Amino acid sequence: MSSGSGTLIAAVEAQAKAADRAAVVMQSVTAERKNQALEGLAHELEGNHEAVLAQNRLDVAAAAATGASTAFLDRLNLNHGRMLALAQAVREVIALPDPVGEVTGRWRRPNGLRIVRQRVPIGVIAIIYESRPNVTVDASVLCLKAGNAVILKGGTQALNTNRALASMVSAALAAQGLPAGAVQFLDTGNRDAVAALVRMDSFVDLVIPRGGEDMIRKIKEMSTVPVLGHGKGLCHVYVDRAADPGMAEEIVFNAKVSRPGVCNAMETLLVHREAAQTFLPRIAERLSLAGVELRGDERARAIVPLMKQVTAEDWGTEYLDLILSVGVVDGLDAAIEHINTYSSQLADAIVTEDRKAAKKFLDLVDSAAVYHNASTRFTDGGEFGFGAEIGIATGRLHARGPMGLKELTSQKYLVYGTGQVRG
Amino acid sequence: MSSGSGTLIAAVEAQAKAADRAAVVMQSVTAERKNQALEGLAHELEGNHEAVLAQNRLDVAAAAATGASTAFLDRLNLNHGRMLALAQAVREVIALPDPVGEVTGRWRRPNGLRIVRQRVPIGVIAIIYESRPNVTVDASVLCLKAGNAVILKGGTQALNTNRALASMVSAALAAQGLPAGAVQFLDTGNRDAVAALVRMDSFVDLVIPRGGEDMIRKIKEMSTVPVLGHGKGLCHVYVDRAADPGMAEEIVFNAKVSRPGVCNAMETLLVHREAAQTFLPRIAERLSLAGVELRGDERARAIVPLMKQVTAEDWGTEYLDLILSVGVVDGLDAAIEHINTYSSQLADAIVTEDRKAAKKFLDLVDSAAVYHNASTRFTDGGEFGFGAEIGIATGRLHARGPMGLKELTSQKYLVYGTGQVRG
Repeated sequence: MSSGSGTLIAAVEAQAKAADRAAVVMQSVTAERKNQALEGLAHELEGNHEAVLAQNRLDVAAAAATGASTAFLDRLNLNHGRMLALAQAVREVIALPDPVGEVTGRWRRPNGLRIVRQRVPIGVIAIIYESRPNVTVDASVLCLKAGNAVILKGGTQALNTNRALASMVSAALAAQGLPAGAVQFLDTGNRDAVAALVRMDSFVDLVIPRGGEDMIRKIKEMSTVPVLGHGKGLCHVYVDRAADPGMAEEIVFNAKVSRPGVCNAMETLLVHREAAQTFLPRIAERLSLAGVELRGDERARAIVPLMKQVTAEDWGTEYLDLILSVGVVDGLDAAIEHINTYSSQLADAIVTEDRKAAKKFLDLVDSAAVYHNASTRFTDGGEFGFGAEIGIATGRLHARGPMGLKELTSQKYLVYGTGQVRG
Repeated sequence: MSSGSGTLIAAVEAQAKAADRAAVVMQSVTAERKNQALEGLAHELEGNHEAVLAQNRLDVAAAAATGASTAFLDRLNLNHGRMLALAQAVREVIALPDPVGEVTGRWRRPNGLRIVRQRVPIGVIAIIYESRPNVTVDASVLCLKAGNAVILKGGTQALNTNRALASMVSAALAAQGLPAGAVQFLDTGNRDAVAALVRMDSFVDLVIPRGGEDMIRKIKEMSTVPVLGHGKGLCHVYVDRAADPGMAEEIVFNAKVSRPGVCNAMETLLVHREAAQTFLPRIAERLSLAGVELRGDERARAIVPLMKQVTAEDWGTEYLDLILSVGVVDGLDAAIEHINTYSSQLADAIVTEDRKAAKKFLDLVDSAAVYHNASTRFTDGGEFGFGAEIGIATGRLHARGPMGLKELTSQKYLVYGTGQVRG
């Protein structure tokens, strides 16, 4: 660790403790007061964002001077329109029902005890993210609405922007008499801060890393706090023998082309051998015209010779680009086996009119979301009806798939007796 | 690490991979077939346990020779009656409904997509436990019933017993045509095996440590797999000003004395200052007669001078013994603050006839189970109506409180379309 990291870590610990204290207050704040604070934030984001934009210009200029890519600068950049969009996103969260206090179960025991299970906040949630300033607002707002305190550690290249946004969120809380400390911004570019934070399990209840696979891997390695990570998205569409060819074409095209850079885009197309002869040439032509590079196995290339040869590595690669692996399979079982071998278990789809085949696929493909006759692109909190999402969990514990407000809660049991003791 | 640990770790990895393969099969096994396998196991435990008892005698003799305590030997020891009790426990799990396939939500989106959320197995669960052979059967059976594969790493002093029991479970699976590999027994006393296992996150989905606080702490430090730990249990009972004195006496006595060595026993009694004068002498006499050592604060000792002085450390100590910390508080708020400072957040109770006070206590005490007019001792999967439990989770993610079969599942989304694509 760098010299002075003892001081740094003490400062991070002080912030984690402050978040923990604020979380105690936040857990019993009414929905109305939380919404008022968020409304105040939306108002500031809309009407009082010049200071934020000034800080953002500093970050963008510094990043440009170090030769950052156009795509990176675009993600970093804020402007009037983007501030309005951020305010709009806050308003969407205001409109969502408060999950805290929701009764998820209620029963009576033979001894007369009444048990009620209720949603409660998780406590302190640390969000570790890259240089996307919108996350500072989006993630804070979701955590706060669910009654949590939040610790923000964003990418260093957005430090000035994030500082300004985080203090806007804190001020909005304070303006409603809520604890400003419920938002803690780690104002440092030093990575030792993250390494220390994710081991402060006395104060931090959950870590949500948002970034690339390597970053998430490192956080998991270091953390003693539970981590809900958004792993890679390697999604498949299987076009069955009994697929409606027109529907299959639309779904495959949408899953690949509508937004190739996101986790729920298709990376591999599997086609039943009996459908391949007619289906592959059609879809290959349409995808090629859209600029998609096709990489096929032997059988696919026998039908569409223009495809490149797919490699063993390709089957396991999340392209996030206009590239598609294509395989011809002997049938449903082979498709399921291929998918359970290579899928990142985020989302996989079957296109078929054969309901028995669809049931088998949906039962046996071990992914967070499995689709019959729809595009994998629907794997998203908004599309699922959860409102905003804080990410998509690719693990199997606590949350799996899109994570909305409910996934930012824990639960507790309220037990009502009349003097019962245990025999 | 010791020499030869490379070979050891390769062997552990081979077992983890085998569990992962078996888990794929287990996830779609019907409840009926799982129950048949468990019934076969119960039958063997009842009628064919001489080989297990012979192995157990080896373990007990070896432990006795090293001077193990009577309590330790008692936990290690198996006999005819205990084998029948194990079989009975298996039958209780057979009687529980299979959580796999349970629909936990079902809705339709405006675009016509139908979404169904369903319970599915978690996958591969590693159980790391001390020298209690019953865990080998109890934990395996719960994991298997929920469609998971299980990796068992028990205490070294029970190695012979556990090996015999684990192979009995495997054989019961195989007898029904289910994968014997769904139970993997780590047949080693080498701790490097555990250190390696809990980092095999490609194959292991969940680690459940069952043992002391230090052991759980170490597992959490090492693990890259999610850990559901059973932390300490430091439970409080608060006797309010408006408590029914007779009810308070029964609840306090039960919470402390009925089984002092378990996690849901009371360790600290708090009494409202207006109730203390009459209540404390009565309960102190009854507890003292039952052999409980009382450690009070100044105000408690002013009323019952025979109490020892409680220390700052005592408030945070899980005695697991006939010792009780006693404090007099100014009122409800002080009780809640004390509890939120010192509680292990497992279970805390208020005794009062004042419903507003009870509501405030249940809302603000941030513990997995909060009780009004009942003993903390009910914090248990069986008492909650979950059937058997695999432990009590003191964390806030995935499961909080008693963990039954449902807590051994994950979920997936089944999405049914008619050709929907995303705009």
